[in-house]
Formats: sequence, structure tokens, C-alpha cells
Amino acid sequence: MSRERLYLFDTTLRDGAQTAGIEFSLEDKIAIARMLDDLGVDYIEGGYPGANPVDTTFFESRRTRKATFTAFGMTKRAGRSAANDPGVQGLVNSAADATCFVAKAWDYQVELALSSTTGEHLEGLADTVRTAAAAGKEVLIDLEHFFDGFKANRDYALACVETALEAGARWIVLCDTNGGSMPSEIRQIVGEVMTVAPGDRLGIHPHDDTGQAVANALAAIEAGVRQIQGTLNGLGERCGNANLVTLIPTLVLKPYYADRFETGVSAEQLERLTHISRAFDDRLNRAPARQAPYVGASAFATKAGIHASALLKDFSTYEHVPPESVGNERAIMVSQQAGKSNLLTALARHDIRLEKDDPRLERLLATVKERESRGYSYDGADASFGVLARRVLGTLPDYFDVEHYRTMVERRHNASGEEITVTEAVVKIRVDGELLMSVAEGNGPVNALDSALRKDLGKYSSRIEDLELADFKVRILDGGTGAVTRVLVESRDASGERWVTIGVSPNIIDASFEALYESITYKLLKTEAAQDSTLGANNGRATG
Amino acid sequence: MSRERLYLFDTTLRDGAQTAGIEFSLEDKIAIARMLDDLGVDYIEGGYPGANPVDTTFFESRRTRKATFTAFGMTKRAGRSAANDPGVQGLVNSAADATCFVAKAWDYQVELALSSTTGEHLEGLADTVRTAAAAGKEVLIDLEHFFDGFKANRDYALACVETALEAGARWIVLCDTNGGSMPSEIRQIVGEVMTVAPGDRLGIHPHDDTGQAVANALAAIEAGVRQIQGTLNGLGERCGNANLVTLIPTLVLKPYYADRFETGVSAEQLERLTHISRAFDDRLNRAPARQAPYVGASAFATKAGIHASALLKDFSTYEHVPPESVGNERAIMVSQQAGKSNLLTALARHDIRLEKDDPRLERLLATVKERESRGYSYDGADASFGVLARRVLGTLPDYFDVEHYRTMVERRHNASGEEITVTEAVVKIRVDGELLMSVAEGNGPVNALDSALRKDLGKYSSRIEDLELADFKVRILDGGTGAVTRVLVESRDASGERWVTIGVSPNIIDASFEALYESITYKLLKTEAAQDSTLGANNGRATG
Repeated sequence: MSRERLYLFDTTLRDGAQTAGIEFSLEDKIAIARMLDDLGVDYIEGGYPGANPVDTTFFESRRTRKATFTAFGMTKRAGRSAANDPGVQGLVNSAADATCFVAKAWDYQVELALSSTTGEHLEGLADTVRTAAAAGKEVLIDLEHFFDGFKANRDYALACVETALEAGARWIVLCDTNGGSMPSEIRQIVGEVMTVAPGDRLGIHPHDDTGQAVANALAAIEAGVRQIQGTLNGLGERCGNANLVTLIPTLVLKPYYADRFETGVSAEQLERLTHISRAFDDRLNRAPARQAPYVGASAFATKAGIHASALLKDFSTYEHVPPESVGNERAIMVSQQAGKSNLLTALARHDIRLEKDDPRLERLLATVKERESRGYSYDGADASFGVLARRVLGTLPDYFDVEHYRTMVERRHNASGEEITVTEAVVKIRVDGELLMSVAEGNGPVNALDSALRKDLGKYSSRIEDLELADFKVRILDGGTGAVTRVLVESRDASGERWVTIGVSPNIIDASFEALYESITYKLLKTEAAQDSTLGANNGRATG
Repeated sequence: MSRERLYLFDTTLRDGAQTAGIEFSLEDKIAIARMLDDLGVDYIEGGYPGANPVDTTFFESRRTRKATFTAFGMTKRAGRSAANDPGVQGLVNSAADATCFVAKAWDYQVELALSSTTGEHLEGLADTVRTAAAAGKEVLIDLEHFFDGFKANRDYALACVETALEAGARWIVLCDTNGGSMPSEIRQIVGEVMTVAPGDRLGIHPHDDTGQAVANALAAIEAGVRQIQGTLNGLGERCGNANLVTLIPTLVLKPYYADRFETGVSAEQLERLTHISRAFDDRLNRAPARQAPYVGASAFATKAGIHASALLKDFSTYEHVPPESVGNERAIMVSQQAGKSNLLTALARHDIRLEKDDPRLERLLATVKERESRGYSYDGADASFGVLARRVLGTLPDYFDVEHYRTMVERRHNASGEEITVTEAVVKIRVDGELLMSVAEGNGPVNALDSALRKDLGKYSSRIEDLELADFKVRILDGGTGAVTRVLVESRDASGERWVTIGVSPNIIDASFEALYESITYKLLKTEAAQDSTLGANNGRATG
């Protein structure tokens, strides 16, 4: 049976960059484009070359391996030709494969925001499309305010579609710019657009202002459009765009869609979905949403309650898709075997290879579970997992021991009568039998401890020179007085690698110190591996 | 024009209690029921009397003022009559106005989970409905697995509906138990159910496993059902239930629905929506979702970008509803006036009445904005707002000054060679010219400072005796090294009131101390007000 192809267009790096509190560096954009390529989307819209230095640099070379690399910008301004419009030329001369130009499909907006006429605007749209197409770009047109515009002036909205189509745009994208349309409205209006344009030339760009961006995308697909725009984890202006992390598994796994449509995402790529979603949140420095569809930590969790006993008899009736199909896992652990295979995968990430029946695996699993019951969480602290695994397996070198530490924060008045806060920390460690004592000040107790701890590591000092604290997160678990504190420390070094370590204790200082200690241990393990592999390479040359 | 009535059924306290990580105390349940009553929902499902002590106690008296107070439970077990089933009788004898019994609409589940026959199950359903109705309860039936059941065995699923209807159930609720149905499937299947039952006897209970719980609720309404089940902020098992905080404004504000339907939520109640949603998250000790539809801090935020200039010309084209209609606000502040009216509302909460043209209002607004730019956030720290307002207005009594504090955390080995961590704090304060110095230990520096600070407040000591630290939250803002720490402290006292104070500083200890200090100040203000009002009441009596 032949299925129709749906095209996934990701705009995380463009519309997602409009999210309050989000700012992407060039390094972020490169890393996120890689994640998106891994996921298998068809188009990656990377930003707006010419609008800011990061985006301009980003478009100096092609940043995708497989996906169509797409630049966003405005159609030409009134009063000049597209060939002479620096904005349009910025896109045309970029390394993008495709250019997506935004035009206004609501006559009121043309007059209000552009102080132009609808006739001029249509002409500009056509000129822009022809110019970019002639330069060899695949051309997309985002029709802003399409649905509100259609309700206000159906003829003008449809004229925009027809003009873009005739000028040679590959895709005309219908945007629900303020996110206010209902699925039934989308379905009906797309149906009317289908009378002037074929569905395989139409896209949908929904927003989540009524919590229905995914439903609006699906309604548009059912009505005929074949390109869907969205973002990772639903990032985007205001309430965000359609969440591709939710939409993709629905399209791939639900027979209601999968029987009729196919996407560019394979079953293997889908199994990476949970990992990609969480890694993306990590990069944004935010906690993944536990209740996120498909990929949330709770998405396949069932509390002991009315459903648990029935669930244990047959998972399929309480799980709408198998958790492993999206790389997630069931939260009721009934089989140690399932836990073990996850563990083997995690160990492989740290280059630790064990057989499935190695008895140490059972011990490591028990240790991880015991620690997670006390508040540790290794999902987001993979470096600590690597350190813990080596400790349990007995392969962790004994780099250094902490004999003692002390930190003090004091607020007092200085000689001039001003109120000041002074923070200092003292750390005493033992390296190869030698006692080393360091003291440091800081802008807080954790910062002071970090400085003191790293001041003198004896023979290891040179190996941690480029180690930096990138982020520090604290959460109180359980709330209230019996609470424990969970600290996550993110570190980075000159190689660009970032790693996260965890500490848990009723005492925030102890928890922080544990995470700092593990970060240094991880860095020492990492530099040891680098030394080994240099050695290995030399040996290779010698014998080759 | 006469509009059809839609009934809102809230299950935050029942299905919401299935959320991973959520556990409601009796006090939580009472407070949340009050929020829901304030919001104007029609039914409040409070839990499962008989299943656990909290729920049993909760159902000992009627906990709603206006909403129908509803108890959840199972239909009778096989082998006994509903009159002799302790589970059914627990509900019937509770203080609930209505009882909602769950039955299975999928033949496979009846045999798998209940080890019963479909005939027996239908009989039990009817007996349960009749028994509860005869005892004077309004009766609802939740038909679990309805949509999967319908696909597997249409006749049995419809027989459940008809049996419940004939036995006298007011509502038959169609549950998408595993959350896997698409809106188009819901629409079609509800259409078929409408051939055996009128829509004003049908409800929908969707789950958010594909991110479409709200869309599924709306599809069901369009197809005919007139009761919608959901929860505050979408709480619930796995990915949650339909989010009533998203659904209600869509039903009330969108002409597509509002022209045809009405709910029990008034325009005034809708204006409290943002406050209720955030207060609920505060109670759950979690940060409100910034991108939540309607109520999120970003829901009406626009970054300087392609939309900002058009937005400034006409908000209505970029905002699908006016932010104030749901008690939220636009994040591009163009009018100081808007800020001022919010401020007057907030001051009134603290019994501070000012005229709109009072010059101090301008100063307070500037102070709040300046502090928010440094990381303070008064949305969730209303007690700190009250303290700040009085400070800026010059009406804050000078209770006590902190001269000095110091806290120390030390990890060392004790005499037996065990590793121990010792934490202590010293605080020196001045009350009415008298210097008081206290020292205390704690399980962390904040705990020790809190104990030392409250140990001796001189003449105020008796007024803070019942003050308790209920929760402590830390967030690092901006991440990275230039970060500041935001600390929120929640306190409570014997009256049951809870209040939240905030501290911000690069130093976590300074930030925590500020929040602790403000909590005590708030408590002193509060006890002063109590003394005043006792005095006021006495005066009233004397002159009355």
C-alpha cells in the first residue's frame, strides 16, 4: 500500500529562538541542528541571516548533513526590487538550501504593519519567490495571520496562496500566528484552500495558545496539508509551536495516521526521541517536563492504585504505545531484566563493556536503585553514573581523599560601617599520602569550596586546569522539613564537553561538595582515558 | 439566543492524586476544593472514601460551598449485592452529594482484570446505580477504556451506556483511559454513542498521552457530550488529564464555543484563573509552566523581534484573547497605568489602600520593577511584596536589626574516625537598643541560621512561637557563573496560613537569610494586625 509522504519542518532555531528566556549561541545552534538531523526531520530552519551576528555566521556554511538547511527572512520591502533588497539577498547568498520568506495574508496587517497596499504586497511576494528560485533555492512562503486573515478577507488570503504558487514557491505555509484557531476551524479553512492549491504544496504552522497546536497540525493534515512546522519540546513564541516530540510519534506509531502517511523518521530514529528531548532540555538548562507526552519521566508511570494490578496483567491495555518505541521506559519495574538492559546501554556510553550475566551488574543495579530511592537521579547526571559504575565495579582509581573541609559565611560591618558578606572555604585533601591544604574566598559557600578544592590537587593539578563550573542547580526533594537537597553541577572544559554530576544530602553544602568532587573525578578519568588513547595511538603507529 | 449548558467536572483531587510525585494532605484537599469552588466548576471529585484515611476523613463532611461534592469508587464486586458491598456503602454513606462509580466498558478488561463475565458486570453496574440513587445520591458512571472497548466490541460498550442510563445514572462518562485516542476518533465514536444516549447525559474523560486531551474534550463537545472532566493545570496519571485551566477560557472566550455553549464560570471568576493556577502550583511546590496557555508568564509575552512593532500598533491581532480576561498580563509593558492598576489590586490584598494618583505608587512601581530586573519575583512571594510595600510607603515598623551573622559548615572525622558534618550559625540582632546573640546547630546552614535567628527576638519572641518553615526552594537565575540565587521560603503558623518570602543574592546564604528575615517581619506585621483588630473589635463593642 502506498502511503503519502508528510514533511517535517523544524523551526526550533528560528521561532524557538523567540521563546522568552532563550538565547542560542552559535555553538548551541550547531549542536541542536545535529540533534534534529539525528531525529530525521526534513527541514531545519536555522534562523534569519542578516538579523544578528550569530545567525549570519550560522548561515556561512551548510549546517545540516541530511535535512534541507533553511533560512528565514522577510519578503522584499516596498519600493525596491527583490534583486536589490539586501534582506532578500542576504538569504539568497547564504549557504541555505532553502529560503522561507514571510508575507502577510491579512489585508489589515499589510496596511497596519507594513503601511503598504495589498497589491504591492502581492507583487513583492511574487518578485521575492521568483528571485530566490532563480538563484537555485527551494522557496517557502510563510503566510502570517493566515486564518484570521481568511476570516476577515477570504479573497485576499487565497490570492496570497495563488500568487506564491504561480511564482514557483515549493511550499505555502498557513500560519496561525496568534495561536487562536480551533482544530475545527483549521480543518474547514484548509479545506477551502485546497480548492486553489494542492495539499502537497501546503504547510501548517500552528501555535499552542489554546493548548491545541498538535491537534491543529493533525486537523490540517487530515484536511490535506503535507508539511508540518513545529519545534523540539514545543519551544516558541508565547506558548510555543507544535511540539514535534509529541507529533512525530503520533504520526509514526498511531495506525490512524501511520496507515495513510509516512515521514522521514525511521523506527530507529524514533527510539532516540526521549534521549534527544532530554538532551535538548539539558542544553537549555531546564528540567524536562515530567508529564510530557511520550518522553516524560511520568509518561509511562503508574502509581500503585486502581490501575496497577490490571496493568501488571497486560501492559498494552494501559499503554497507548510501547514505551521502548520512543526510547522511554515504564516506571513500574517488574522485570530486573529490563533494568539490566538499560544499564548495559548506559555503561556502554562510558566504554564499560560487561556481559549480561556478570554478577557485578546485579550489584550495580541494586546500588543505583538504592541511591535513586534516596533522591539521586542519574538520568540527568551521566558523569556521576560513570563514576559510580567504576566505583561499584572496582575500577575507579584512588585519585585523592578529602580529609576535611570547612566553609564559613559571615555578614558584618566593615571599617567604613558598610554591610559586607565574606565567604571562605578551607579544604584539606590527601594525594598519594601527601596532605594538601587550600583556602579560598568566593561569592557563596559553594563557589569558595570549588575554588579551594581545585587550588592544589598535587600531581593532578595540570589535568584539571581547564575545568570550569558551568551551572549549578538545586532542588529540594519532598519539600518540608524532612527534605533532602539535590544538587546538580554542570562542568565543562576546553574540549567543549559538558558533564553533569549530582550530590544529595540533607545539608546543601555536603550535597554540593559531593557533586564538585565527582566532577573532578570525572575529569581525571577523562584525561586518563585521553592519555591511554594517545598511548594506544602511538603503539598503533609503532606496530603499523 | 439560548445557549446549551456545559458542565465542568474537576478530578484534581482524585485522578490528579495519581500524578507521580503528588500526595495531597487533608489540608491540601480542603484548600484545593476551595480554589475550585472559587473558579466555578460544577463538580468537585474529592477522592475515594474508604481507600485511604485522608480520603475517608475528607468525605466526613461536605467540603464544597457550591459545587456538587463527588465521591469516587468502584461498582460493586461480583458475588454480593450493592447494598452489602462495603465499598459502595462507603460512598453512599459519605457526605458526598454525588457518587461516581467506575465500570469497565471493554469486555477484554472485564475478563482480564475483574475475572468476571460481561453479564455479571452489567448487572453489578445497574445494581450499584440503583442503590446509590435510592439513597439520594446523584449518580455518575465512569466507563473505563470506553474508546478502546468500543473499537474491540461496540455492542458491549454501548450496552454499558444503555444499562447505566436505564438504571438511573445522571451522567455516563466516556473515558479514554490510556489517552491514546485521536480527536477524529473521539468525534466519530461519540457520534455513534449519541444514537443510544442523549448528549446531556454524556461526559468525556480524556488523558493527555498524545498532547490532545483538550482537543479531545472539545471534539467530544462538538459531537454532543455536555460534561467535561479535567484537572487544574492538567494534573493526573501519566501525562495528565484535560487541563481545565486551558479548556475553560477557550469555552468562555472563543466565539466558536461561547456562541453555542455556556458554563458555570463567570467573567469575574475567569479573571481569577491565572492567580488560581499559580497558587495551585505553589501549593504543589513546583514552578508554574511559563508557556502554559492563557496563564503562563510567557502566554502574552513578545520578545523584541519581528512581531514587536506590529504588536505595538494593535495588540488584538497578536493576542488571541485579552490577557486581562484571564487575569494575566502582557509582558511588553507599554503603559505604566496597567502596572499601576495591578499594583493597587495587590496592595488591597494587604489591606493597603492608596489613591490611583498617589505619588508613592509610582515609587513603589519603580522599586518593584527594579527589583524584578535583579531577579526578585513577587508573583509567588506575596508576603515579601507586603513587606516591601510597607517599607517603600514608610509604614513598616522597625522591629529589629541584624548586626551580624555567621554560619559555618565543617566536615571532619570525629573521635571514632567517622566522617561527620557539623553546621552552626551565630546571629546578633538589636531589638529596641538591646543586643541579643544566639547560636544554633542545624542540618544545613539555612536551617541553623533560621534556628539562631528565631531563638531570641526579645519582646517579640512570643509572637513568633508558632512560626514554622514549611518549605525552601532555590533557583539559580541565568545559569553560569554570573548567576544570582533566588530563594523562596514558605512559612506557616498555627492559624493554618502559609506565606512565601523571597531573597535574591549571588550568595545563597545571603539570599536565604533575606527570605527568613522577611518571613519573620511578615509574621510580626500579621500579629500586629491581629492585635489591632482585637482592639478594633473591642472598641466596636464599647461604642456599639
